[in-house]
Amino acid sequence: MADIRILGISGSLRKGSYNSAALKVAAGLMPAGARLEIFDISGIPLYNEDAKAQGYPEPVQRLREKIAAADGVVFATPEYNFSTSGVLKNAIDWASRPPEQPFDDKAVAIMGASGGVLGTARAQYHLRQIGVFLNMRFVNKPEVFIGGAASKFDAAGNLTDETAKGLIRNLMAELVTWSKRLKKD
Amino acid sequence: MADIRILGISGSLRKGSYNSAALKVAAGLMPAGARLEIFDISGIPLYNEDAKAQGYPEPVQRLREKIAAADGVVFATPEYNFSTSGVLKNAIDWASRPPEQPFDDKAVAIMGASGGVLGTARAQYHLRQIGVFLNMRFVNKPEVFIGGAASKFDAAGNLTDETAKGLIRNLMAELVTWSKRLKKD
Amino acid sequence: MADIRILGISGSLRKGSYNSAALKVAAGLMPAGARLEIFDISGIPLYNEDAKAQGYPEPVQRLREKIAAADGVVFATPEYNFSTSGVLKNAIDWASRPPEQPFDDKAVAIMGASGGVLGTARAQYHLRQIGVFLNMRFVNKPEVFIGGAASKFDAAGNLTDETAKGLIRNLMAELVTWSKRLKKD
Amino acid sequence: MADIRILGISGSLRKGSYNSAALKVAAGLMPAGARLEIFDISGIPLYNEDAKAQGYPEPVQRLREKIAAADGVVFATPEYNFSTSGVLKNAIDWASRPPEQPFDDKAVAIMGASGGVLGTARAQYHLRQIGVFLNMRFVNKPEVFIGGAASKFDAAGNLTDETAKGLIRNLMAELVTWSKRLKKD
Repeated sequence: MADIRILGISGSLRKGSYNSAALKVAAGLMPAGARLEIFDISGIPLYNEDAKAQGYPEPVQRLREKIAAADGVVFATPEYNFSTSGVLKNAIDWASRPPEQPFDDKAVAIMGASGGVLGTARAQYHLRQIGVFLNMRFVNKPEVFIGGAASKFDAAGNLTDETAKGLIRNLMAELVTWSKRLKKD
Repeated sequence: MADIRILGISGSLRKGSYNSAALKVAAGLMPAGARLEIFDISGIPLYNEDAKAQGYPEPVQRLREKIAAADGVVFATPEYNFSTSGVLKNAIDWASRPPEQPFDDKAVAIMGASGGVLGTARAQYHLRQIGVFLNMRFVNKPEVFIGGAASKFDAAGNLTDETAKGLIRNLMAELVTWSKRLKKD
Repeated sequence: MADIRILGISGSLRKGSYNSAALKVAAGLMPAGARLEIFDISGIPLYNEDAKAQGYPEPVQRLREKIAAADGVVFATPEYNFSTSGVLKNAIDWASRPPEQPFDDKAVAIMGASGGVLGTARAQYHLRQIGVFLNMRFVNKPEVFIGGAASKFDAAGNLTDETAKGLIRNLMAELVTWSKRLKKD
Repeated sequence: MADIRILGISGSLRKGSYNSAALKVAAGLMPAGARLEIFDISGIPLYNEDAKAQGYPEPVQRLREKIAAADGVVFATPEYNFSTSGVLKNAIDWASRPPEQPFDDKAVAIMGASGGVLGTARAQYHLRQIGVFLNMRFVNKPEVFIGGAASKFDAAGNLTDETAKGLIRNLMAELVTWSKRLKKD
């Protein structure tokens, strides 16, 4: 039975997304006693405070509960236009409305895959600033920047690059360790 | 007849949005020979590269054409979670797909209104980084941070704060001057 | 006897610096069982890797030892040109050279005072990115942005603004709590 | 006779600095009708507002005059701790004091070299934010990130990597074009 539950969120809705694939890879590389569940944000509508006044749409409510129940969260973010995707930011905007902001004091890790050399670094630093407001507790290292993704995943979405795989494994181990450390109080 | 056409985009979908209100205020403060048209992004769907492969949804196509036809763009951004709204980022993600990226070499200004003291400063610096990729040419000054917005707009969305109004007027004057300067080549 | 030792570093060398004054204020607002010692970085020379090859200059060596011995660090940063001061960044550059990087896994808090409205917010987010590399563990809240500093400190450097004083007190309490939490392993 | 004068500033004081070397390379790749002069900032002292009250130290005064006289500026920045060097930030802090802030409305480009994969990207985005305050007019593209610098420069500081050389050549061409464009008013 898994003691540590991690929730994975991909910032890309594309079927063949490298980031969604990276999360699936991560799920297979979790340390003993930990489990990664992936949440699909494609059902989260565009954020509108007027709509929120009617109550949370069902997929938003479900996302909020999953985050709250998890010991840690991992984002797999694409980089669009030197930042995280609007789609991922939009899901965070919905999920984080007070009260009972579910990211509060949560262990969080970030990874990302992109075609370019930087491997979503710019998107990840924007996420880190977003997390300051939400009191996320980020894993600092390792940073997982999977650049040149097209040559590192095969057509079925398997990660064939051993270096990248090792980084993901290390990040998941760190996230689990960090989650446990934060729970000790 | 207006020589300089500016397109205004608000990053909030809320009916009573201070940012949408600020754009309307800006439309009334344009210098002679310039006109501000506001584009409503509520019809822009969540970005999905698979969907894009089918062609641009009609609201996206319209947004792209409006940006391309404009001499300059002004964003009015809320600040959610220390960044721009997912909704605005999502619209930019759709609008900016190559080829014929319409923001290229375009004069761009940013303003923003929020309840807090900082008045969307953090969101605006994220937008500025996004603009580097898209080769936007930003107006640097004045920065328009309308903090404590609830006390500066009345219930009808009129801006009652003269300092803020002056800043918006100056920003629009700068944006028009900058647009003209960039067109001189 | 103090159980928790915090090291304070001001990023301004000016005698009447509001940031140096804010640190002195913080020293008087520490929770029971904690003590704040202030380190003066005016003796830290400009960073030069060639010079470093000769060994650390004495003030640098002393700074490194003080950081290593502390349970937590608080930076009081001015904001020059929308970032932290070159002087503070330079001290961090010296202090952080590997091996035995003394900021690693250290509890860190940031405050800042400036004349403007934003109260060094921009400088503080740059410091937070710097801290990712150095594996600093930042306190997220409260953020202490002392804007309009000239009206909040008296001529003797006393902080006369009760709101700002309360924020500093809360930040120090959080830093001490966070330091203890990180030490629990 | 050169029509366009560019000032180059390296953010590293190390004798064998890749960034200083990159500036020398750039000087040899200037387009016709343009010239790059390199300014050595090793004589700029630590910024102290009390010292400034006595007048600018001679190297600072000289730097300010050189910037003011130039049509454009190019920074070659190292990346220390995920930001620009304290040494470069410190020089900018001195050079930019009002009145007669010499960076105002100046065409500016950035390049950088580092050992890591990202090639100073993080440092460059911090510089871009610094430039907003100083009303720098940045070249957006190309971005010149010379990662893995040790394998791209030879022992004498010659750049042996043709891709990097091409990027520097393109950046200098863009900076000169942009400088001319800004001068047209």
